[in-house]
Amino acid sequence: MASLPVSPLAPDCFPDLPVIKGVRFATAAAGVKYQGRTDVMLAVLDPGTAMAGVFTKSATRSANVLDCQIKIGADSDAGAAIIVNSGNSNAFTGRAGDQSVAAICEAVSSVTGLPESRVFTSSTGVIGERLPHDRINAKIDALNNSLDETAIFDAANAITTTDTFSKGSSAQLEIDGKTVSIAGIAKGSGMIAPDMATMLVYIFTDAKIARSDLQGMLSELNEGTFNSITVDSDTSTSDTLLLAATGASDVKVSPDNSAFKTALHSVMLDLSHQVVRDGEGATKFVEVEITSAASDKDARTHALAIANSPLVKTAIAGEDPNWGRIVMAIGKSGAAADRDLLTIRFGDITVAEHGWVSSTYSEEAGADYMKQQDLKITVDLGLGTGTSKVWTCDLTHQYITINADYRS
Amino acid sequence: MASLPVSPLAPDCFPDLPVIKGVRFATAAAGVKYQGRTDVMLAVLDPGTAMAGVFTKSATRSANVLDCQIKIGADSDAGAAIIVNSGNSNAFTGRAGDQSVAAICEAVSSVTGLPESRVFTSSTGVIGERLPHDRINAKIDALNNSLDETAIFDAANAITTTDTFSKGSSAQLEIDGKTVSIAGIAKGSGMIAPDMATMLVYIFTDAKIARSDLQGMLSELNEGTFNSITVDSDTSTSDTLLLAATGASDVKVSPDNSAFKTALHSVMLDLSHQVVRDGEGATKFVEVEITSAASDKDARTHALAIANSPLVKTAIAGEDPNWGRIVMAIGKSGAAADRDLLTIRFGDITVAEHGWVSSTYSEEAGADYMKQQDLKITVDLGLGTGTSKVWTCDLTHQYITINADYRS
Repeated sequence: MASLPVSPLAPDCFPDLPVIKGVRFATAAAGVKYQGRTDVMLAVLDPGTAMAGVFTKSATRSANVLDCQIKIGADSDAGAAIIVNSGNSNAFTGRAGDQSVAAICEAVSSVTGLPESRVFTSSTGVIGERLPHDRINAKIDALNNSLDETAIFDAANAITTTDTFSKGSSAQLEIDGKTVSIAGIAKGSGMIAPDMATMLVYIFTDAKIARSDLQGMLSELNEGTFNSITVDSDTSTSDTLLLAATGASDVKVSPDNSAFKTALHSVMLDLSHQVVRDGEGATKFVEVEITSAASDKDARTHALAIANSPLVKTAIAGEDPNWGRIVMAIGKSGAAADRDLLTIRFGDITVAEHGWVSSTYSEEAGADYMKQQDLKITVDLGLGTGTSKVWTCDLTHQYITINADYRS
Repeated sequence: MASLPVSPLAPDCFPDLPVIKGVRFATAAAGVKYQGRTDVMLAVLDPGTAMAGVFTKSATRSANVLDCQIKIGADSDAGAAIIVNSGNSNAFTGRAGDQSVAAICEAVSSVTGLPESRVFTSSTGVIGERLPHDRINAKIDALNNSLDETAIFDAANAITTTDTFSKGSSAQLEIDGKTVSIAGIAKGSGMIAPDMATMLVYIFTDAKIARSDLQGMLSELNEGTFNSITVDSDTSTSDTLLLAATGASDVKVSPDNSAFKTALHSVMLDLSHQVVRDGEGATKFVEVEITSAASDKDARTHALAIANSPLVKTAIAGEDPNWGRIVMAIGKSGAAADRDLLTIRFGDITVAEHGWVSSTYSEEAGADYMKQQDLKITVDLGLGTGTSKVWTCDLTHQYITINADYRS
């Protein structure tokens, strides 16, 4: 497919990411599907690295995800490797898919000396076509010989598919007088929805954290970040988020260290927003916030009903302040709502309240607001204390163009 | 908005509908919103008519729906009136919406002599703008003076909004040597999804049926017809289906008369399919059938996950036999599925089985099949006896064009 224009919502540039001691990257052009670009990345993590992960809940998840899920819960000081290919998701490829994962793990293990149980694989791209893993395995020697702690930008490039920009984010903080760094990369632009809402994400830190603590933090922070974004309500069969703590900073981080959690949260939130900003065809970045719902669960149901509604998303694409469609989405969601207690706001503009359009609202103000690239829709339900925040994008012609023509 | 091209999936013409004795129709151009076309229809039903109805479950349903729901359960021999306007849905219009309904009912009652409790109203069109009911009421005298038992086609026209064709269907059958007739009209093309999946539908029969029996039949048959279609997963705030049995044929129909139920089902199924065929921007009509699911409920969950998936619907628009997206939709639905037991078929072509692409499948055969206008996707889950059938259309550029620009 011809390369797509860069999303108008993309950041100006890929950020400078700090080097994370204890992890090195290499990339290669294996020709899995794409030609003339890198499509495999290998990350090798030093002994002592703790690994945590969250994965798609799809019932038809890929062989790679199933394999990662088996391995992720084990404690080990042996180090680890992450190997990722783009162009083929190795999902719904039957027993051949399991064999491909096993073959890749064996090859990486044999070249790096790491046990197979510490090799984590991801594949992203077309579903249902056999993964030509020999092409990947033919590159592992070269990958292992070119590992470089500064090559994270190349890694971010190699894992992209329909992405229009490469995604990275980082944070640094001082703990006990020493600097702790976090850096992450992500890929994803379509087939994005909660449970599990990611795509492929790899985050690295040089903090020293016990595996179970790392997993607890990741699972907790995932809810308000990658599990709160939606592009098209479609859940991928490959979604994987791995978090590796190399410990190379020698700074021990306890599970209740709120400064570290805040920093990790900021990286996860930034990367998740970048995925939405690269939503297929997106021209608007939209935050949907629900307040005063009967419960947090109800708030989330309402938020997702709005964020996934094709009628809401096309209205936003058309810069139409069509708040009636928000009323519709609230009404259809199935969660508790009382027409006469709803308040709808676009940014700071009160649009509707007391069961009708607000007396202070003007269509001109609404239309003006909708011209902005970053939008915020708030609905207060007036029922209780439940809240939720989700992020989405608009639904445009370009989404149709990309998905009616591309075998992803 | 400029009028849209007629859907390529439209029937060749509006069918000849039989006259239903006991109901007369009239239409008028009241200028509720549209200019230069009819936008109000009045149907007056003779004394002795039994009324039944099913309605949207939206928590933000319109004042009209709320009023109909109060009235529909009462037995009465007084006859009835149905008055419908297009161009304004009278939904989310606060107390003013209730007042508009009351004012219209009062006006119709005063002109026709029917009690207000027997006047049923519907409004369809933009949400959140005050219904100019005075414009409607100014036409009621003229409407009442022009009632005509043959004017059902005009009625079908008057209730349309973004519809690209008017929708009608009928059936006739012999019972005890006498002819019983059923005729119905419908409107709807976007904001169509189950619970309740309609839009506006009015069906008339000259059979003599007790009100509670009529309601029982309607609720039962609704599940497999209007509650099994989806265009965009968005549920309207106005969905209303009224069924009136005038009794003018003097043929008593018992609730277990399967020939009558079959005939009524055929009219409801035909009208529901016409709504999908007029789905905004639709170029493909798609039946999704799930078999061997763990339960009927699971089957329906899977069927709707496929039918509502933007990625599946855009692939169909692109005539891409992208069965991987069907695997994705099954996987995300949340209902039980086993990758290795799934069988996916396009028409009679087995696409995937045993957890992978079928050995007999060719991409050419799949691509050829997708060129057809009417498609059938079948997924057998290999788990149990649950089944479900739903109907949908593809997701095209035209859907975006219609909904990014039209304040509906």
